Amino acid sequence: MTVDRSGRKYFTFAEPPEQIVLESGSRLGPITIAYETYGQLTDDKSNVVLVEHAFSGDSHVASHKSDDDEAARPGWWDSMVGPGKGIDTDKYFVICSNILGGCMGTTGPTVENPATGKPYGLEFPVVTIADMVHVQKKLLDHLGIKQVLCVIGGSVGGMQVLQWCVSYPGMVRAAIPLATTLRHSALAIAFNEVARQAIMADPNWNGGAYYEKSLPEMGLAVARMIGHITYLSDVSMRRKFGRRLQDKSDFSFNFDADFQVESYLRYQGSKFVRRFDANSLLFITKAADYFDLKGSDGQLLNILSRSEIRFLVVSFTSDWLYPTYQSRELVQALKKNGLDVSFCEIEADCGHDAFLLPNTRLDSLIAGFLKGVVEND
Amino acid sequence: MTVDRSGRKYFTFAEPPEQIVLESGSRLGPITIAYETYGQLTDDKSNVVLVEHAFSGDSHVASHKSDDDEAARPGWWDSMVGPGKGIDTDKYFVICSNILGGCMGTTGPTVENPATGKPYGLEFPVVTIADMVHVQKKLLDHLGIKQVLCVIGGSVGGMQVLQWCVSYPGMVRAAIPLATTLRHSALAIAFNEVARQAIMADPNWNGGAYYEKSLPEMGLAVARMIGHITYLSDVSMRRKFGRRLQDKSDFSFNFDADFQVESYLRYQGSKFVRRFDANSLLFITKAADYFDLKGSDGQLLNILSRSEIRFLVVSFTSDWLYPTYQSRELVQALKKNGLDVSFCEIEADCGHDAFLLPNTRLDSLIAGFLKGVVEND
Repeated sequence: MTVDRSGRKYFTFAEPPEQIVLESGSRLGPITIAYETYGQLTDDKSNVVLVEHAFSGDSHVASHKSDDDEAARPGWWDSMVGPGKGIDTDKYFVICSNILGGCMGTTGPTVENPATGKPYGLEFPVVTIADMVHVQKKLLDHLGIKQVLCVIGGSVGGMQVLQWCVSYPGMVRAAIPLATTLRHSALAIAFNEVARQAIMADPNWNGGAYYEKSLPEMGLAVARMIGHITYLSDVSMRRKFGRRLQDKSDFSFNFDADFQVESYLRYQGSKFVRRFDANSLLFITKAADYFDLKGSDGQLLNILSRSEIRFLVVSFTSDWLYPTYQSRELVQALKKNGLDVSFCEIEADCGHDAFLLPNTRLDSLIAGFLKGVVEND
Repeated sequence: MTVDRSGRKYFTFAEPPEQIVLESGSRLGPITIAYETYGQLTDDKSNVVLVEHAFSGDSHVASHKSDDDEAARPGWWDSMVGPGKGIDTDKYFVICSNILGGCMGTTGPTVENPATGKPYGLEFPVVTIADMVHVQKKLLDHLGIKQVLCVIGGSVGGMQVLQWCVSYPGMVRAAIPLATTLRHSALAIAFNEVARQAIMADPNWNGGAYYEKSLPEMGLAVARMIGHITYLSDVSMRRKFGRRLQDKSDFSFNFDADFQVESYLRYQGSKFVRRFDANSLLFITKAADYFDLKGSDGQLLNILSRSEIRFLVVSFTSDWLYPTYQSRELVQALKKNGLDVSFCEIEADCGHDAFLLPNTRLDSLIAGFLKGVVEND
C-alpha cells in the first residue's frame, strides 16, 4: 500500500479481474482508489464510518495529526470529523475515498489510459453513482471490512449514501444522506448542463484532449461560478454581500467587478481552476444527472424494503438545489416500507452549502444518531 | 420619420444638443430610438400607455394588422396588448420603444460610433436604467406627449417603470411594475455576472470588437442558458421536463443531451445568438445591476412622496429572480408615503417568466386598474 505525504493511501485492483463492468456495459481497469483513514479500526471492525464526499471534494475529509504540512492541512469537513467531534475519531474509524471519475487520486479522466499511454480525457467512460459505489466496495473488500456502522455524505455524497443502501444493503447498518435527493431534478440537471456547456464552449477544451496543451480555464471558471450560485441562497447572498461595492466608493461604469459578489464569484472561479479538472466536472455532473433511485417502477422501495438499515435524513431550509420536499419524498418512501427513519429539517439560511458549514445542531444530531446505532446493536 | 416594414418607427435626436449627458457623466449622441405604436392617440393625448420591454425584448410588443409578414409577426406580449385585451388598443395608444444599449433599432453597441466609423462595441458607454428612461422622455417630447396614462413593464421593464416615476413623476398618472424590484439583489447580480463572464470568456468576444469577425456565439449561448434557468422555476421545470429523455429510450453514456431539459436549454441558447448581440447583453445586465432606487438614504421615498402616481404592483409566487418579498418592500415604501398602491401576488408556478405568459387574472387586473385610472380622472 502506498501512502503519500498528504496522508493519502492508494489501493489498485491488482488481482484479476482488474477491470470492473460499469453500468453502461463498458469495462474499466485497472482502477486506483485514493483514500484516507482517521481513528483506529476495532478488532471486530465494527466501528467503520464511511464518508462520501460531494462533487468537488476529495479523500481529505479532515486534517491529520502530522508534522507534514500537506497531511495537517485543513480537511473539507474538519468541523465534523475529528476527536470529540460529531463523527468522533476517538470512537469511529473513518474512511473517505476520492470518487471514481474524480481528479484527486482515484482513477478518472486525468490518468493514463493504458490503451493509449495518454490521459483518458473523454475516452474515460461515463460512470454512474452506482459505479462509484461499486469501486468503494472493492476498497472495503480489500480492507477486510464486511459491514460499515454508517455511511454518510451530503449532496452528490448523499447520492452515494443512498446508492450504497441499494447496491449493498447487507453491508450498511445505518445511513445519513444529507442535503440530497432520490433523483436529480430538471432544475439541477439544467444547472449542470450549463456548467458543462461553459466548459465545452472553451476552445481550449478541445474535445477533452487538453492535458498536454492549454487548459480550458475560462470555461471551467464560468462553470464553477454557476455552481457557486447554486450552493448559496438569496438570503445568504444578501447577508454576505448585499449590494456592497468592491474597493470602490462608486460604480466603475465599465465591466470590472463593481460588487463584492462579482469579485467573490470571479475569485472562486479562478481558485477552482488551479485544483480541479474540467473533464472530471463533466463526468461527475453527468453521474449526478443520471441518478434516479426511484425510476418509473419504484425500484428503491423494492430493494430497500428487504434491508434493516436505520436512516437519518437531513435537509436545510434554504437549500434550493435539493430542497426539503425532496428529502421528504425520500423519507416517505422509506417509511412506507417500514424502515426506521429519523428526519430533520435544519433551519439554515446559507443554502445548499449548509451541510458543510459548522453547525452544532447537525453535529449533535449525527453524534446522537451514531451512538444510538452502536447501542441498539 | 422613418417607418420600416416591421412597423418600427425611428426617431433620431436631430436638434442640438443632439447628445445627452449620461448618469456616468459621459456624453452620448446622436441617439436613434426605435419604437412602435398601437391604437389611436386621442386629441387631448390622454390615452397613452407606455410599455417597457424586459432585457431581451424589443419595440414589437404586439403584432400589427398588416399585409406585411414582418409587421404582422407575433409580438412579445400579444396576449396582453391588442383590441379588447388587457391593454385594449381600441381605447389606449400604446407606445413601446427599444431600450438604449439594446440591439433592436435603438442606439447601442452594435451601431456606428461617429467618432471611429466602426461599431461602438465596448466603446459604447455604460448606461443606466435612468439613461434609458431619459431617452424615452426625449421620444415623448418629440411626440408632443406631456403625460402618460400609465407606464407598465415587467422585470428590467419594471425597473424602467419605477425609474419613470422617480425621474419624471409629473409625467406619469399611473404605474404598473410587474415581477420587479427596487434594487437588484446579490443573487440577481451574481447570475448576470456569470452570464457576462461566459461571454467575455469566449475568445471571439475579443474585447467586444467582433462585429467584422466571428461572433462570440458559444459564450452568448451559455449566457442565455443561465438566463433561461432563472426565468423558470423548480416546479415549472419539473412539470415541463421532469427527467424525460430526448428521443431516446435510455441514457447515451456520453455528453449528448440526454434529457429534454438539456435540449431545451441548448436550443434556447442557439436560437438567441441569431437574434441578440453579446455586447448588448453586457450593457443591459450592467444597467440592471446598477439599479437601486432606494440607496442608503431612502431616495425613492423622498422623490415619490411628492407625486400623485397610482400604483399597481404585481408579483408571482414562483418568481425567484425577483421574489414577492421584493415587491412587498416596494409596496411598503410607497404606502409609507401615502401613495395609492394596489398589490397583487399572483399564484403561478412558471417562475419569473409568468408576467409574459397568458394569464386571465393578470389581464383583468390590468384592464380594471387602467379603467379606474381613467374614471377617477
